[in-house]
Amino acid sequence: MVDVRCQKLYSAFGLKQLLSEISSTTKKKINISQAMAIAIHEAYQGAQNVSPNPMVGCVVLDGHGNFLSKGYHQVYGSAHAEINALKDLDREQLQDATVVVTLEPCAHVGKTGSCALFIRDLPVKRVVYGLVDPFHLVSGKGAQIIKDAGKEAILFSEFTDRSEGKTTPIMNQSDTAFINQQLEILAENFLLNVRQSKPFVSLKWAQSLDGKMALKNYESQWITNATSRTYAHYLRSIHDGLIVGAGTVLRDNPKLNIRLEGVSKEGKLIVIDPDAEVFKSFEKLEIAKAHKKENVFFVIDTKASQAADSTPGSFKNVLFLNKSESGFFPLEEIHKFCFERGMKSLLVEGGPGTLNQYILQKAFNRTYAFIASVIMGDGLGYSDDLQLSSMSKKIQLKNIEKLDMDDDTLLTALV
Amino acid sequence: MVDVRCQKLYSAFGLKQLLSEISSTTKKKINISQAMAIAIHEAYQGAQNVSPNPMVGCVVLDGHGNFLSKGYHQVYGSAHAEINALKDLDREQLQDATVVVTLEPCAHVGKTGSCALFIRDLPVKRVVYGLVDPFHLVSGKGAQIIKDAGKEAILFSEFTDRSEGKTTPIMNQSDTAFINQQLEILAENFLLNVRQSKPFVSLKWAQSLDGKMALKNYESQWITNATSRTYAHYLRSIHDGLIVGAGTVLRDNPKLNIRLEGVSKEGKLIVIDPDAEVFKSFEKLEIAKAHKKENVFFVIDTKASQAADSTPGSFKNVLFLNKSESGFFPLEEIHKFCFERGMKSLLVEGGPGTLNQYILQKAFNRTYAFIASVIMGDGLGYSDDLQLSSMSKKIQLKNIEKLDMDDDTLLTALV
Repeated sequence: MVDVRCQKLYSAFGLKQLLSEISSTTKKKINISQAMAIAIHEAYQGAQNVSPNPMVGCVVLDGHGNFLSKGYHQVYGSAHAEINALKDLDREQLQDATVVVTLEPCAHVGKTGSCALFIRDLPVKRVVYGLVDPFHLVSGKGAQIIKDAGKEAILFSEFTDRSEGKTTPIMNQSDTAFINQQLEILAENFLLNVRQSKPFVSLKWAQSLDGKMALKNYESQWITNATSRTYAHYLRSIHDGLIVGAGTVLRDNPKLNIRLEGVSKEGKLIVIDPDAEVFKSFEKLEIAKAHKKENVFFVIDTKASQAADSTPGSFKNVLFLNKSESGFFPLEEIHKFCFERGMKSLLVEGGPGTLNQYILQKAFNRTYAFIASVIMGDGLGYSDDLQLSSMSKKIQLKNIEKLDMDDDTLLTALV
Repeated sequence: MVDVRCQKLYSAFGLKQLLSEISSTTKKKINISQAMAIAIHEAYQGAQNVSPNPMVGCVVLDGHGNFLSKGYHQVYGSAHAEINALKDLDREQLQDATVVVTLEPCAHVGKTGSCALFIRDLPVKRVVYGLVDPFHLVSGKGAQIIKDAGKEAILFSEFTDRSEGKTTPIMNQSDTAFINQQLEILAENFLLNVRQSKPFVSLKWAQSLDGKMALKNYESQWITNATSRTYAHYLRSIHDGLIVGAGTVLRDNPKLNIRLEGVSKEGKLIVIDPDAEVFKSFEKLEIAKAHKKENVFFVIDTKASQAADSTPGSFKNVLFLNKSESGFFPLEEIHKFCFERGMKSLLVEGGPGTLNQYILQKAFNRTYAFIASVIMGDGLGYSDDLQLSSMSKKIQLKNIEKLDMDDDTLLTALV
């Protein structure tokens, strides 16, 4: 599945063409920008399986700047990207090689050994890394290990300033800024987790061209096409937890699991369930069949706690919260609860009521909007509760990426 | 300006690359599908200036299938596409040539002479034309003139069935269906004009991602970016008339003219002005400065006719109409009025009230939606008055084409 977040990378670097031209058997010279673009693209292949680790990709060039190999971090606990890219190359191939990797090679010996130590012992000449390791206790240490061995370890954004850059030139300055942005996006979950100790929150919805998620009677099947609906399962598969409101569960009785060919992952499910209605009728619902009980979490109004407590077979994963004066839960509290239980990223799927709360509280980092080419008229939107007094207060989305879903369009953006 | 309607053609035929490879000096063999794709693309260059004629494009291949030249109908009253493509080629080059043209060559000697007669006298072998001339009195006559001269004249969609097709093969059957669709779209105004004696009506609006055209207080500046706003002037320039409601004129006092570099065209302006308010205050408004009086048309409620009549300096171009029981004008009557006054295509720009009426009455052929990557919340949309009881009644748009306007998206579709 192509990740929508690397669409601009595709067009900026003619990536489809470039990927078809590189292989381990033909000699093809590429520059550092191109190598980093390929490394970023590689990294996304791990999107479904690396959490809580970051996605990382790696490209190796020989001493003449020819493409040698690529690799990515595939599954949490298994080999890192650098190892996957380097493992099939012999010492002769690696003479004066350049390793281009999206994140600073790890210094510490964890589940899989230190990448920096591994590279130190190879005859490579240089490591160009995209981002400094954000853990402040270890940041810079991986690079230092490589430098101490007499090799170069250079942050990508600083590479252009060096005279050696001329032998393997970066394309131009605007490439650098663009790629830096793409590196930040690639690591968006991880960076937020480390810097702010909170999960990355994505909102997802399916809408008509005129912005409706459902008719007034809540009918919504189907707004978007089959391609969009399949991709929505990909989005579930790249997040640790899925958040929905009780209304959606009670109205539609959905499974809310990941149904994607070749993917057997089970994510966590968080139901915002103020009156404990889903909680109490859980066993009768489709979600009970589709999810292991330990993977289902509830957020219940403190006032309804007695009802919840008296329910037989109660869950351990319940957060009791007080509603604010405006009658809604403070969403950041829910996120904190999820983060403490290992969820590094959350996908909020609605329904309309839940999404409106997210937009009102601005409690999200990214939107995924599937836009169908239909007009639905009066109905329920995701922003109905937002009342702006002036256009200057509109929510301006940033870093827009779009992907055609046949006649539908998937638009994703940061807020 | 790239016409959004040929976006799929671009991607399906790698047209950008193909156009860069063909020239009169290098020999490049292309097949009939590619030639027709280029001819369609050429035709759109005339979009602003050929009305009431259709847009037509033409490509000439030499006896070996090499590209020789291309041309399009540039301005109403001037040379047709075939003449423009053929005029710089000598008889030697044209030996056994194939002329690929989007519309059947004209038979009659009108403002510019008969294209069929012109081709008859050249040593070309074959004409492949996209559509039969829709005027039933002359349809097939152009092709007959060419056949009578011992040459081939073949409708594009019938070309694959012929054994001669093998020497200049059409790519495949799906190409044929796709190109036929593109040919119909290219001629959409003209075909509707001829077949149904009515103007082609396009709706245009700028919307937020959540489907709003303005806040509740009617503030709307600016939803979309500068690229979108410039393209909106291109849309004005390819329609004969522009329709707006009185509310928009009175609220925003816009110029409503075409402001596009290199274009000096003045279109016609139709104001739906039930209470004759714009009519009466015309001289004080910006539209009075931006438009010649003979190019401004009003649609006024019959009940307000007395007020209109007593206004000094009255217009000739006024349509008095009765509102229907639901309190709105029958829009088809307005279109008929415009068609009788030479307008073959109309662009409806709103505001929200006018667009809602168009959508309720389904009185349009095409939509142009500029979608900005912003969330505006509660506000005014173009479909608020549409109340659907079931999803099966949603307005499904067809033949979707999309064009990036930087972070905005232009989506156009047929209804």
